Amino acid sequence: MQSIPRALRRALVGKPIHNERFRDAVLPKRTALPVFSADALSSVAYAPDEIILTLALAGTTAVAISPWVGLAVLVVLAVVIAAYRQNVRAYPSGGGDYEIVSKNLGRTAGVGVGAALMADYALVVAVSMATAAQYVTAALPGLADRRVELAVAGVLLVGLLNLRGLAFIGRAAAVPTYFFLAVLAALLLVGVGQDLTGSLGQAPSADREVLPAAGFDAGLTGLAGALLVLRAFSSGAVALTGVETITNSVPYFRKPRAANAAATLGVLGAVSAAMLAGVMYLADRTDVVVVGNPEEQLLVDGRLPAPDFFQDPVLGQLAKTVFGTESLWFYVLVAATVGVLVLAANTAFSGFPTLASRLARDAFLPRQLQARGDRFAFTNGILLLLLVAVVLTVAFGANVNSLIQLYIVGVFVSFTLTQAGMVRHWGRVRRMRPHPGVRRELFGRRAVALVAFVLCAAVLVVVLVTKLTQGAWITLVAIVLLSAVMAGVRRHYDAVDAELALQPDSPVRALPSRVHAIIYVSSVRKPLMRALAYARASRPSTLEAVVVDTNAAATRRILDEWQRLEIPVPVTVLDAPYRDTIGPVVDHVRGVRRKSPRDLVVVYLPEYVVRHRWERLLHNQAIRPLRARLHQERGVMTASVPWHLSSAAGQDVGPESAPAPQQRAARP
Amino acid sequence: MQSIPRALRRALVGKPIHNERFRDAVLPKRTALPVFSADALSSVAYAPDEIILTLALAGTTAVAISPWVGLAVLVVLAVVIAAYRQNVRAYPSGGGDYEIVSKNLGRTAGVGVGAALMADYALVVAVSMATAAQYVTAALPGLADRRVELAVAGVLLVGLLNLRGLAFIGRAAAVPTYFFLAVLAALLLVGVGQDLTGSLGQAPSADREVLPAAGFDAGLTGLAGALLVLRAFSSGAVALTGVETITNSVPYFRKPRAANAAATLGVLGAVSAAMLAGVMYLADRTDVVVVGNPEEQLLVDGRLPAPDFFQDPVLGQLAKTVFGTESLWFYVLVAATVGVLVLAANTAFSGFPTLASRLARDAFLPRQLQARGDRFAFTNGILLLLLVAVVLTVAFGANVNSLIQLYIVGVFVSFTLTQAGMVRHWGRVRRMRPHPGVRRELFGRRAVALVAFVLCAAVLVVVLVTKLTQGAWITLVAIVLLSAVMAGVRRHYDAVDAELALQPDSPVRALPSRVHAIIYVSSVRKPLMRALAYARASRPSTLEAVVVDTNAAATRRILDEWQRLEIPVPVTVLDAPYRDTIGPVVDHVRGVRRKSPRDLVVVYLPEYVVRHRWERLLHNQAIRPLRARLHQERGVMTASVPWHLSSAAGQDVGPESAPAPQQRAARP
Repeated sequence: MQSIPRALRRALVGKPIHNERFRDAVLPKRTALPVFSADALSSVAYAPDEIILTLALAGTTAVAISPWVGLAVLVVLAVVIAAYRQNVRAYPSGGGDYEIVSKNLGRTAGVGVGAALMADYALVVAVSMATAAQYVTAALPGLADRRVELAVAGVLLVGLLNLRGLAFIGRAAAVPTYFFLAVLAALLLVGVGQDLTGSLGQAPSADREVLPAAGFDAGLTGLAGALLVLRAFSSGAVALTGVETITNSVPYFRKPRAANAAATLGVLGAVSAAMLAGVMYLADRTDVVVVGNPEEQLLVDGRLPAPDFFQDPVLGQLAKTVFGTESLWFYVLVAATVGVLVLAANTAFSGFPTLASRLARDAFLPRQLQARGDRFAFTNGILLLLLVAVVLTVAFGANVNSLIQLYIVGVFVSFTLTQAGMVRHWGRVRRMRPHPGVRRELFGRRAVALVAFVLCAAVLVVVLVTKLTQGAWITLVAIVLLSAVMAGVRRHYDAVDAELALQPDSPVRALPSRVHAIIYVSSVRKPLMRALAYARASRPSTLEAVVVDTNAAATRRILDEWQRLEIPVPVTVLDAPYRDTIGPVVDHVRGVRRKSPRDLVVVYLPEYVVRHRWERLLHNQAIRPLRARLHQERGVMTASVPWHLSSAAGQDVGPESAPAPQQRAARP
Repeated sequence: MQSIPRALRRALVGKPIHNERFRDAVLPKRTALPVFSADALSSVAYAPDEIILTLALAGTTAVAISPWVGLAVLVVLAVVIAAYRQNVRAYPSGGGDYEIVSKNLGRTAGVGVGAALMADYALVVAVSMATAAQYVTAALPGLADRRVELAVAGVLLVGLLNLRGLAFIGRAAAVPTYFFLAVLAALLLVGVGQDLTGSLGQAPSADREVLPAAGFDAGLTGLAGALLVLRAFSSGAVALTGVETITNSVPYFRKPRAANAAATLGVLGAVSAAMLAGVMYLADRTDVVVVGNPEEQLLVDGRLPAPDFFQDPVLGQLAKTVFGTESLWFYVLVAATVGVLVLAANTAFSGFPTLASRLARDAFLPRQLQARGDRFAFTNGILLLLLVAVVLTVAFGANVNSLIQLYIVGVFVSFTLTQAGMVRHWGRVRRMRPHPGVRRELFGRRAVALVAFVLCAAVLVVVLVTKLTQGAWITLVAIVLLSAVMAGVRRHYDAVDAELALQPDSPVRALPSRVHAIIYVSSVRKPLMRALAYARASRPSTLEAVVVDTNAAATRRILDEWQRLEIPVPVTVLDAPYRDTIGPVVDHVRGVRRKSPRDLVVVYLPEYVVRHRWERLLHNQAIRPLRARLHQERGVMTASVPWHLSSAAGQDVGPESAPAPQQRAARP
């Protein structure tokens, strides 16, 4: 029936992966780093831009303080990394922030964190692919007005790769991340070298003048100025996203999992700090300028630029400055950046479904999000993320600057709650440990958690204050709604569990006193005979056939055949005053049930199995709705007796299911 | 589950109609005439326009011969009516042309006629509603650019009325048709009166000059001229559509059906002939001019009119001429015309589904087109026509003149074949009747059929020659495709019948030697207990439970419960190396079948019945595909054991199915 889709699926997603190969899905550090750190590492491709263009609202001079903003981000980064290295050791099961918060601050907070992280994973994908599209257009200006399509294509590509399963991603991932790191390292080293030898040039945008926005004519002064700096900081803080991904992914690490994860976190922190610092430094030294919308804010050679004016991202400008405008390095860098951004999206695609399956296991989301697909990926979760990310990308026209406004709210909600949870955690652990040495060590850990908590809380406040009206409210609303949905789902599952749980007095062995078998007859042909045979084989207490009299002639024909063949089963004709087949059958079944409520009624429905979808139009039109309707009745069981139309015989429904010869033989 | 849609449906379509009320759906002549003749009668609203605007291509003078073209149409009409009065008497069963042709010229020709008529019914709806929209805009110029929306709205309205059932339409139909006839009669009588007394004025368009199209500068000369006259004739021949509707609708007439139908046909012929003649006469006397596209062909006061120039249809112009431009009569006439056009579409909506159900009964179309809905209408057929008509209307921008080009091809294909069939029919009947008197009478009938055949064949040729390139080819292609589809459907059903037919050696009483019952276990809760109880109640030869091991912990839990409750059924754990639940179950079932191919395997599937659609997202995700997949297997029966989640309890699934108290009581 679905042989075509299956074939397509195989082609796109690949053959099923055997459980035996699960170890392939477990990653050594050298692979885990690129897979799970790409998100954090890649943010250096847009974080500096966001800091600078935000400050640029206050004019050229304001940009000068960008290094200090960058430094502030680094401080937060360092603290958060330190805290999370403790977290993964304390909670190595892969529950990450969600688990920590649920265990220490209760279910509600936990759900909130889950929702916050899910929202942010979606934004990681959208932002990364939007940025990637931006870099592509920087290298290929011809595609400038294809940005959205490029970004969407990127999302789809990554989603598809992930449907192929982690193992594949793992191997593929290492290369581009390391390539990006190498290229960026080269750029920074050469750049700093030139700076020391005084041969470092000016950025292409250095001579551009920035028109301050309304209210910033005096530069960064007063409250407005302070707020703008804070906003620049909170935009720069995107560099911290992706840290939590590792704590969610501990199970994918080789043993000792926690230790390896912690080590990876350390490396990640060091590397991304170094990169961010280097880029901010060089950007400052070369007077790089980028603004939100050039055609309004920029003066190029004293004039406003044309609407189609394109400004390179910071990394691009640095490449042109350090290696020369004509140099191939620019394109190498673009390629490397796009590569790592793709992996960043990929990080989210591995983190989101893992989290979703965890939430599903705890019954906050539909169960099917829990299942691993035959490629070992959480198929449903991936598809869900794919959908959301595409919607986001299209809705915001793949505009990085507007997507950024929705971003990192979730991350810092999660950071803050997590650290609050950890403070309580360490406190509790400490109380249980009498030994002074241990206590001292735990005190230290708790201190770290506390500092991290305070800092993250502060950042969260900053982010909310500076971004709420810019778009962060959308994220907050999404988080709240999602939490509500998850709470509702959990309530539903709880109710069902309570209802279905076996009480000691549950009638484990009670059998229905008698079984009434009813055979639905639409024509006296082979399928009916099979249904009769099957029904009689189950030796019901009573067996009757029913015919719905929608067409006098047809009914007559059936009854004649019945006599002619001397079928040893009583047949009842059901009147159908409204010419509908379902009502009469249901009423009849009800009648039977009413006479003997403790008995079981089994309705046998002969069904055709056809090969082509279009053939369905020609069969079973009456049966399917009837079965659905009968399911509404209590104490009624429906038995489907399939008949394979020869057009359906020997059909290919996947290798594992070509009918065995004996089975063919068994067909009457 | 679908309580909302049902409520909506009830509101739109109404309560079910009991078979007892079928007689309400049978119409006396005075109602049958309006219901089944509106199509033919209403064509006077556009046939004259089509004749005149076609001739107008050759300039003003050419329009002068329009009466003669009209006369030719009348002749054909008379002959066809005469022939069809014989037809309904000879074939009163309501099969109409399709039946006549199938019986006398064979199945293929019959299918062709069926396809042709279906195509034309769709066009009747499209053309009528497009014309109606034109008249509405004539009265309310403000709606001029809403033509398409108006037409589509009309189609939907009529479709809906028909879903409400014929009885309703019947009563509602009489009024507007008679109203239209009255208004038109008044118009013609007054007009002719004025003409005789010499007080008949000139039409508003009389003084407009028509620019002849390229090649017609010399007027109607040469081959081109002749062809143009023929084209005008074939456009005017739309007046004949709707005749066959009555022959398809004989069963709706009161007894004596055939006689009443024949009588109605006679009245119809006389009335529409009179109306057409009258309109053509007055149009000629008042020098009415209408053209295809005014902004190119017309000179108003010597200048080309503005693009938004609107020309009234012929009837409208006559009303203004006879009763005065300012008179209310114009609006009365518009209202009456729109009313009758709506009924014309309605005619098609009663004819098309009747024909479709006939074709379905003969297995040329899917069976469900055969079923009468609970309002006694052929619901599916109506919906199908609704769809096609809307598509046509939108595709051709509700432009009458372009739709007309696709029109009446089907009708004349059907007329011609039908009369050919009747010629053969009368010949055969005659050969069987020795009595000279009877033979003479039958000779007469045969002569009429023969004349009608020749005439219709000639018209068909004319239509094809003059319209094929104008758009008739679309209709022809549609007819051919539709015929092919119907032939294919018939082949399929024939193959199925042959396959399912009971041969004398069919094992009517053969029972499977043994029954293997398999219970699919996803959790040990009440539904499982019910499934166990039901399965054991059917006393299978062997009974086992299977657990698919997709999650080690879950499997462990199930097995523990199994022991704790001492469930007296062996449980098999199925390995799921690819984490998919379906494959292992199927393979297991196959194993059982392979061991004993002659036995029956019954798989019991516990299923949840939920109240709200969204709850489905949370349940049965695994079961439904599994059941579908198991249907692919031979010798396997699936038994669904429904469990009604309390959220689904006492749900309203329509009045006829609120669970009876005993049934509630019966729930464990």
